[in-house]
Amino acid sequence: MSDPRLYDYAASGNCYKVRLALAQLGIGYERVPVDIFAAETLTPEFASVNPARSTPVLELADGRRLPESGAILVHLARGTELLPDDPFEQSQVLRWLLFEQSELLPVTGGLRFRLVTGRLSPDSAPAQARHAGGVQMLGLLDGHLHDRAFLLGDGYTIADIALYGYTHVAHEAGLPMDEFPAVQAWLERVAQQPGYMNDLVPYPPNARAGAGRSIYE
Amino acid sequence: MSDPRLYDYAASGNCYKVRLALAQLGIGYERVPVDIFAAETLTPEFASVNPARSTPVLELADGRRLPESGAILVHLARGTELLPDDPFEQSQVLRWLLFEQSELLPVTGGLRFRLVTGRLSPDSAPAQARHAGGVQMLGLLDGHLHDRAFLLGDGYTIADIALYGYTHVAHEAGLPMDEFPAVQAWLERVAQQPGYMNDLVPYPPNARAGAGRSIYE
Repeated sequence: MSDPRLYDYAASGNCYKVRLALAQLGIGYERVPVDIFAAETLTPEFASVNPARSTPVLELADGRRLPESGAILVHLARGTELLPDDPFEQSQVLRWLLFEQSELLPVTGGLRFRLVTGRLSPDSAPAQARHAGGVQMLGLLDGHLHDRAFLLGDGYTIADIALYGYTHVAHEAGLPMDEFPAVQAWLERVAQQPGYMNDLVPYPPNARAGAGRSIYE
Repeated sequence: MSDPRLYDYAASGNCYKVRLALAQLGIGYERVPVDIFAAETLTPEFASVNPARSTPVLELADGRRLPESGAILVHLARGTELLPDDPFEQSQVLRWLLFEQSELLPVTGGLRFRLVTGRLSPDSAPAQARHAGGVQMLGLLDGHLHDRAFLLGDGYTIADIALYGYTHVAHEAGLPMDEFPAVQAWLERVAQQPGYMNDLVPYPPNARAGAGRSIYE
């Protein structure tokens, strides 16, 4: 079996989650860099890789492809210690993957992207609505982690990887992380796990509003 | 084993998905109605059921609880024909569950909710942005279903249930469903599946903007 391919954007938290899981699982892969803001997800070639034009996309050695970071995390972690065997615990992992994408990411990573790249100013109504949502969702997470080492309890799983991806840079969205001490302690615990690495890069100049061409314009 | 409980809101597409799966799997359950807009998810009691204050929540006979409709669908369908055994196909199911919650629902069900309950007027900028997103996402779905009977191909799965929940009422958001013939044909195929039922109800008067008290105020 040859290595899988990862269609990847270095500054994407969703892509970083997959790179982190691959590193922690010791899985080799071919990295295919996709420059989102140079319109590289807008090409017909990329549409054939993923019609939704999102990254990351995992391509298996046999050519089958899987988009959506959460689905990729489950696919990679099945049968490893990063995904519990117990069906109820697996369902709880999925619950956190879904919560992260639909509730947490828009008000943490989504806010950070829009502020850092000049798509929203901090005092605009949409930025303030996302900020308020971020405070609420990080508060929820803080309550959950108050008496737990990791999202599922004692064991580190892909649920932690999924929520770590954007939460560890949520301060760059202006979110008041010192109000969430349990989240901060959990971020530190994640960073101490075997095989941990962090290769998330800042958004490059062409990600700034008006500078490039992408699905975000 | 006694039956599971479902904390449920009759007008929620996310809750309807779970009710549909329970019906098609022939699983009996106790329905616990939660009147979202009468502030019933804002109580301390409901916070102990689900700190995120969302519905649906599945409560197993042993008292363990699971929120997030997509996670509940997987939990119920594991080991049945509604969820493939093949790991890659299971990952594809997850990919659609994640896509629905983060990309499709906000611009279909989320738009419908805001328009029907008077939270947005159709000509407002946020409504028009969601409308444009809805056209785009339904177009994606239409392309995918062009040469497939169901999302995974030949077999009906919980991915179909998850996307059906809000897509079958997307016309109530003013979305131009006749532009998506493959989606319409798929909606009809879903409605012909064994055990299909539809008990989604319209939003009640207290769901109107300003009429009740809920997480949406």
